[in-house]
Amino acid sequence: MRITLLTDFGTADGYIAAMKGVIAQIAPSALIDDVSHAVPPGDITGAAHALRRYWKLYPEGTVHVAVIDPGVGSSRRGIVVHADQRFVVGPDNGIATFVLGDAREKHVVEITNSRYTRGDVSRTFHGRDVFAPVAAHLSNGLTCRELGPDVTDPVTIPNATPLVTEHAVHGEIATVDRFGNLVTNIAGSYVKQRAVVEIGGAEVRVVATYADAEAGEAVALINSDGVLEIAMRNENAADTIGAGRGDMVVLRLG
Amino acid sequence: MRITLLTDFGTADGYIAAMKGVIAQIAPSALIDDVSHAVPPGDITGAAHALRRYWKLYPEGTVHVAVIDPGVGSSRRGIVVHADQRFVVGPDNGIATFVLGDAREKHVVEITNSRYTRGDVSRTFHGRDVFAPVAAHLSNGLTCRELGPDVTDPVTIPNATPLVTEHAVHGEIATVDRFGNLVTNIAGSYVKQRAVVEIGGAEVRVVATYADAEAGEAVALINSDGVLEIAMRNENAADTIGAGRGDMVVLRLG
Amino acid sequence: MRITLLTDFGTADGYIAAMKGVIAQIAPSALIDDVSHAVPPGDITGAAHALRRYWKLYPEGTVHVAVIDPGVGSSRRGIVVHADQRFVVGPDNGIATFVLGDAREKHVVEITNSRYTRGDVSRTFHGRDVFAPVAAHLSNGLTCRELGPDVTDPVTIPNATPLVTEHAVHGEIATVDRFGNLVTNIAGSYVKQRAVVEIGGAEVRVVATYADAEAGEAVALINSDGVLEIAMRNENAADTIGAGRGDMVVLRLG
Repeated sequence: MRITLLTDFGTADGYIAAMKGVIAQIAPSALIDDVSHAVPPGDITGAAHALRRYWKLYPEGTVHVAVIDPGVGSSRRGIVVHADQRFVVGPDNGIATFVLGDAREKHVVEITNSRYTRGDVSRTFHGRDVFAPVAAHLSNGLTCRELGPDVTDPVTIPNATPLVTEHAVHGEIATVDRFGNLVTNIAGSYVKQRAVVEIGGAEVRVVATYADAEAGEAVALINSDGVLEIAMRNENAADTIGAGRGDMVVLRLG
Repeated sequence: MRITLLTDFGTADGYIAAMKGVIAQIAPSALIDDVSHAVPPGDITGAAHALRRYWKLYPEGTVHVAVIDPGVGSSRRGIVVHADQRFVVGPDNGIATFVLGDAREKHVVEITNSRYTRGDVSRTFHGRDVFAPVAAHLSNGLTCRELGPDVTDPVTIPNATPLVTEHAVHGEIATVDRFGNLVTNIAGSYVKQRAVVEIGGAEVRVVATYADAEAGEAVALINSDGVLEIAMRNENAADTIGAGRGDMVVLRLG
Repeated sequence: MRITLLTDFGTADGYIAAMKGVIAQIAPSALIDDVSHAVPPGDITGAAHALRRYWKLYPEGTVHVAVIDPGVGSSRRGIVVHADQRFVVGPDNGIATFVLGDAREKHVVEITNSRYTRGDVSRTFHGRDVFAPVAAHLSNGLTCRELGPDVTDPVTIPNATPLVTEHAVHGEIATVDRFGNLVTNIAGSYVKQRAVVEIGGAEVRVVATYADAEAGEAVALINSDGVLEIAMRNENAADTIGAGRGDMVVLRLG
């Protein structure tokens, strides 16, 4: 079985390796896939969008560990989301927002059973002491029910829903990826023929792929997640346009 | 079987994890090794040099995925290079230049058989939709022939060959590694006793290893790839000398 | 069996993949876990602290490769530390300092038997030519005795021991982690009720976890390694306080 790891811990301090070691002790043959440890410290929203891109592409039974955990040591809960036969293990702070939104079936439990956590849980490193061992046990076949009580009100991040009018969809930039592509919160299904997109007072045309843009031209397209995105060809649109998360984007339906 | 991944995608956006998930669905027991996702965006040349360092050290049957793909969505082909019993899967843009140059036996095919790609291939993310599933199927035993027609003219990057005269070899810096070592395109076999190297108007002596350099001294040596390299001891030669890719290097044969 | 890799090589140049390929040739089914390749070039001390965090959390039999190797090509020895049933493989330069200090049982050998290294050992890349193949052979069941003679004087880094007086412990910052937390060399067991910590002329109070700090307040706490640490809540204490490795920290016992 596979276990994936998404954190903001970096790698150089050895914290991730501590988590991997704990997993390997409990589930020696588990295949551990690094997703990323380069999430900006505390960026729950960015991590939630990343998690959305891969959680369901993995086979059933996969355990996804996602620990962006600025609230460690506070009263925030640790949870497991069982969604469409995959697991997400981490703090209850909104990181699973889109998993919860996109899953057909879901069940959330709080991690309270100390039988499946490390003997001496620290106040500062639940990645090692709670989430890694729980993930390993789930990978070994443990069921959610054994971990703790049901959670009916998991935390979700405020997800600005675009405002849809007759002639336009008013949305915003949800995330910016490594290439500087500006990913909006506007579903690609809204895009009709002759649509144009406005961002930062400028208008950009809708094309099919990056290669359709002229050199130096910002364009809009439906990206590989099925979402409207503003991009440039071999250039960083975020830097060039000077746009970022939260900026307004309008899709005019023409 | 092992599958390796080399990309310029970074990790934080979850794109790589999407590729890993697709692989895991098709080849659940495949061991996935990250090579790097930190290649500078679009740096095909740098990635081609990196690939050269490891492709043949892996066992026969290994599938190397290498996706630096600024041309995604254009008419550039997707290819598989079958070279000395290993596979390289990626865009046909020169990334496999040195694999093609160094292999004894090679066979290149274009990926056209939609049976082995994802049902709905996006225009912007062939890493997930084409190269990951093809790699997983190859790992499962698929042969190249089933993927598509032969390619007889794979793209290669212009590889500046050094100019060899009676008394000197005129080459250039091909890549710069993380330590600031300046890797040339001059084969180590050209280096004779009493040779000296010129770079940026200065002359440096040829030594056997980093530890032979004096503090603050730039030296030349034959590196672990068998290639002439300019380096410093525990210092970044690229920064200190102010040299980089494409700069001229002359090996005087004394 | 698992093999972990800790280096300062970065990933983009393909050096790590060369090591992984060598391992895969010798031990095809070994599970390879990346610890980090982002250690600052040559930072043996930082890597030694990282290694301390995970080496013993892994199962018995695990082989930890740790290559921060500024002295490659010099006369520095290559060693294997067999400690509490785990192995550490790397240069004899102090990287295993805390493994040697924390282990109950240990045995150190020098790697001299060329039967277990690559045929043609380079002068500049022992990660690939010595440490990777030795790690793979150990993973396959090789015993230390077959590698070379005993080492009775392994190199250790000078580990500033705090000065303990009746009313205070005088220590220093040992490492700074990704979050800017300042990890001291003062064991948490010294911390008593009503203790206060001095750093950079200012006094900070001792709390139980990050969440106990006020916004903008620097605090001291016993971290997940059982060590005194100075931190802030969702802020980078190192940057805010302007403190770093080697700075003095005093724990006043009240």
